[in-house]
Amino acid sequence: MSDPNLVAAPTAWELAVRPGFLIRRLHQIHLAMFAEECGPSGITPVQYSILSVAAAQPGLEQTRLGYEVGVDRTTLANVVARLEAKRLLTRVRGTTDRRLKHVTLTRTGADLLDRIAEPARRAHARTIEALPEAERDVFLRALARLVDAGNAYGRAPLRLS
Amino acid sequence: MSDPNLVAAPTAWELAVRPGFLIRRLHQIHLAMFAEECGPSGITPVQYSILSVAAAQPGLEQTRLGYEVGVDRTTLANVVARLEAKRLLTRVRGTTDRRLKHVTLTRTGADLLDRIAEPARRAHARTIEALPEAERDVFLRALARLVDAGNAYGRAPLRLS
Repeated sequence: MSDPNLVAAPTAWELAVRPGFLIRRLHQIHLAMFAEECGPSGITPVQYSILSVAAAQPGLEQTRLGYEVGVDRTTLANVVARLEAKRLLTRVRGTTDRRLKHVTLTRTGADLLDRIAEPARRAHARTIEALPEAERDVFLRALARLVDAGNAYGRAPLRLS
Repeated sequence: MSDPNLVAAPTAWELAVRPGFLIRRLHQIHLAMFAEECGPSGITPVQYSILSVAAAQPGLEQTRLGYEVGVDRTTLANVVARLEAKRLLTRVRGTTDRRLKHVTLTRTGADLLDRIAEPARRAHARTIEALPEAERDVFLRALARLVDAGNAYGRAPLRLS
């Protein structure tokens, strides 16, 4: 190149060996597989997580729900409002503390959850299917360990791109 | 609950054992660690990937760059424009095909890349640091295998929440 302002590689560190790069790509792959399996429902993995927790813990306080699902406050409020508009869950103000909002699944939400249980399971299974069966558990345990160790991190709204 | 429209859990499948949930959380954790390490630069992991590939392959065609970094066309065009505005890279129209845009790092971009090489490396290393040293390679190999197997998936723009 003749333009002195354009320069070639400093020390290149291949993307394919960067943990963060691989994790982002695997997350994208999971999103695509989830959309493929659960597409008709219009439900995203995060929405599915919220509905699942709301189902398991009826009346859970909204902030706590966000913590369990691993979603920041603002995103959670938006997603919950969207799910409420679709009548998949309801929010009820606290009787002792009116500032709190308690989230509960509706019958429609429970039906949807039942309907996408199998497709969602498939999407999750497909995400790690390329590993030999014996290695899948090892991989999941390692993932769980890392998430547990970093649990305090990464609930703030963050720029992705 | 007295309201018949509000129902309790169908079959609960814990979030903590869902591959997709764990992968999303680990990605968030990585984003937070990357922001902590490389924060002052204002560079996100995706931007860092783009700059890295542009450094390693000067003049790479923009669509091909997006493919390598694992970013859909629209997102890539936005991010590259942002990096160009910061004078970290330049786009040059193809001489044989004027529709193509070839991306090359600038001197400013190369300097930034040098400056954040160490913090970025730390962010990546910290993301898997909670695993015993002997298990890190196994985990990365499993990740790489899954990404390789699912490589055709997940470059379309997808709703995250």
